[in-house]
Amino acid sequence: MSDRNDIDALIEMMARLPGLGPRSARRAVLHMIRKRALLLQPLADQMARVAQTARECLNCGNIGTSDICAICASEKRATGLICVVEDVADLWAMERAAVFKGRYHVLGGTLSALDGVGPDDLRIPALLTRIETEAVTEVILALNATVDGMTTAHYIADQLEGRVTLTSLAQGVPIGGELDYLDDGTITAALNARKPV
Amino acid sequence: MSDRNDIDALIEMMARLPGLGPRSARRAVLHMIRKRALLLQPLADQMARVAQTARECLNCGNIGTSDICAICASEKRATGLICVVEDVADLWAMERAAVFKGRYHVLGGTLSALDGVGPDDLRIPALLTRIETEAVTEVILALNATVDGMTTAHYIADQLEGRVTLTSLAQGVPIGGELDYLDDGTITAALNARKPV
Ligand SMILES: [Zn+2]
Ligand SMILES: [Zn+2]
Repeated sequence: MSDRNDIDALIEMMARLPGLGPRSARRAVLHMIRKRALLLQPLADQMARVAQTARECLNCGNIGTSDICAICASEKRATGLICVVEDVADLWAMERAAVFKGRYHVLGGTLSALDGVGPDDLRIPALLTRIETEAVTEVILALNATVDGMTTAHYIADQLEGRVTLTSLAQGVPIGGELDYLDDGTITAALNARKPV
Repeated sequence: MSDRNDIDALIEMMARLPGLGPRSARRAVLHMIRKRALLLQPLADQMARVAQTARECLNCGNIGTSDICAICASEKRATGLICVVEDVADLWAMERAAVFKGRYHVLGGTLSALDGVGPDDLRIPALLTRIETEAVTEVILALNATVDGMTTAHYIADQLEGRVTLTSLAQGVPIGGELDYLDDGTITAALNARKPV
């Protein structure tokens, strides 16, 4: 149907988003078209705004709307205490628990021999630099309890041994579990019961 | 985090789409931000385009980009044969099967005593008008095999009895099943084996 090209193109773009497929993309697009004044146009505007303003924090790798994110810029967040996470989604999950008052460092993934990901492919060199420049005394390794997550934690622990107090989230993180799937209470418990590595 | 307001607003809007929730919206937004030049900006542009151009066909209720949709406007589609569906998604599912060569009529829902949906809340009066103006000889009732779908089919059959040949999709549509979930082959089989009501 020739007059559906624009709509089909939108469905195809939506279907490529994680968690969506062709069917859910069709449903979502039909829903948005039915509410195009209230939903589709505002969503388009908001996406355009975020496309223009979103950026990675130059310090920690968080995603926000300034070169230095609100957490790194805040005077209320403890300096000297860094929580290392794999992904921005994990940082956001920690923030939803609202229990951690230090700063973060987003690695952007995990070491992986299989996928050829080495320390320099992650933000590990930047982490080592921050240990010095920010006079860090404690690093909390909040990596996912997967094989690659644990390998990465061990690697970072080796690099930092003797330079800072190293802890990791302990109680509550299930084997094989990923932070972003956990409820806030579990994250709080795991943080409060953190143990030395 | 004050600098995440724009991003949080986008996540909230995405989370309200059918099939998405807060978690999948966060994942989708993070994914789009990482590929903002290649994905977020083009998606915003496409949404804005569709918000401007999408409209309901004045004749059949299909969604396209002109006042009369490509199917209603096509000289290749048989006049005199109308397939009645509940929803635009069902029409699109029929079109993917590419077996029906007539025209459609989208009711926009089903009769429902519980929800207070009567014939005038659907496009049933417009269907009755089309029977005359388009000299329709056969109406295929392709409604979902739900209680409300069957109630609606019976109501329309009563209205049209003696005026047109009435058929319904038969073989292949499972009890309680919805058209939009079916594969193309099932829809083709159901259409080919259609039986008089
Ligand atoms: Zn930062
Ligand atoms: Zn039409």
